[in-house]
Amino acid sequence: MTDSNETRTRILEAAALVFAQKGYHETRVDDIVTQSGSSKGSVYFHFPSKEKIFLALIETFTDLLEMRLLESIEKEEHGLGQLDSSLQSSLKLFQQYRGMAKIVLVQAVGLGTVFEERRRAINNRFTAIIQARLERGVSDGSIPPLQTEIAARAWVGALNEIVIDWIYSGETDLQETLPALRTFLLRSIGVSEEKIPKTPRSK
Amino acid sequence: MTDSNETRTRILEAAALVFAQKGYHETRVDDIVTQSGSSKGSVYFHFPSKEKIFLALIETFTDLLEMRLLESIEKEEHGLGQLDSSLQSSLKLFQQYRGMAKIVLVQAVGLGTVFEERRRAINNRFTAIIQARLERGVSDGSIPPLQTEIAARAWVGALNEIVIDWIYSGETDLQETLPALRTFLLRSIGVSEEKIPKTPRSK
Repeated sequence: MTDSNETRTRILEAAALVFAQKGYHETRVDDIVTQSGSSKGSVYFHFPSKEKIFLALIETFTDLLEMRLLESIEKEEHGLGQLDSSLQSSLKLFQQYRGMAKIVLVQAVGLGTVFEERRRAINNRFTAIIQARLERGVSDGSIPPLQTEIAARAWVGALNEIVIDWIYSGETDLQETLPALRTFLLRSIGVSEEKIPKTPRSK
Repeated sequence: MTDSNETRTRILEAAALVFAQKGYHETRVDDIVTQSGSSKGSVYFHFPSKEKIFLALIETFTDLLEMRLLESIEKEEHGLGQLDSSLQSSLKLFQQYRGMAKIVLVQAVGLGTVFEERRRAINNRFTAIIQARLERGVSDGSIPPLQTEIAARAWVGALNEIVIDWIYSGETDLQETLPALRTFLLRSIGVSEEKIPKTPRSK
């Protein structure tokens, strides 16, 4: 990583902390400058505005989520195993980066058209990933035939709502919802209880 | 209905048209005054600000949705039938009031904290309605035991996402998604295909 990339990452890490604590509107670029230990000039060199920092954070987090999903998918052969493994790794990631999840799923919601379009695009991207796994599962026989697009959208919506509720409530361990959520989602695509692997393969 | 109530309703109907067409930010109270055929004084008598008109619209629509759900629920005896019937009547309502659905589910998303809290409260309210039906279904035996809160949240999230996608895409008939969505949601709560009533009871 070049020095410039390191600085960019340090600024983003600082921004994640500040946004998660203060919210978008209350955060000033100066807070991020202070938190990152960089100079004002350096922050503005990388990001011309608060909005650009925020958008870069959203992109960083969704790229990370996508990478984790693709890693989990690669480990499994069948469509069903790929979906199951993706579900587990995405909940793990949200748990690990709760502050980032709050920024992407909660804070970004209140911020007008630009962000809303970004969110639509993100939802569509993850819907496409899930849909491709469902289609693979249908063709390899691990999942019975179904309308994959509707099921994929419904999964994205269901996961969104569960994670948002976890962020707001601030109470439960997100991982605790996994067994019930997993049963729910796998059943929804017609996978019988017996077919659902009993022990998660990766921790 | 008193004259004053009639005027209030006329203003809200006009506002729904204008907001759905122009979006929240582009709408001016004057546009609503013109569209409603009321006087400026009369509009401001009922609603001190554009925000209050918008919030009143959201409330009117969600009250209507809740009423329809409760009507469908009353007609059915078992928890499962109640859920199935609620699903059908809510899709019908969204289809019928697409403009209102756009206001509540899409426009209200970009508008900051007040609206976001309102949306959380609305989601929680509908989650509670679904959860109560699931619990009834579990106790009357029409639905196998499950963690009702997670299932109810996931249903709200899934429905949200499907309806939002329908609003954005502007393409498909929402009712066309019903068979696949219905299979998906009923399966998700462990209801076997054979148990799912084949023909919708109410059109």
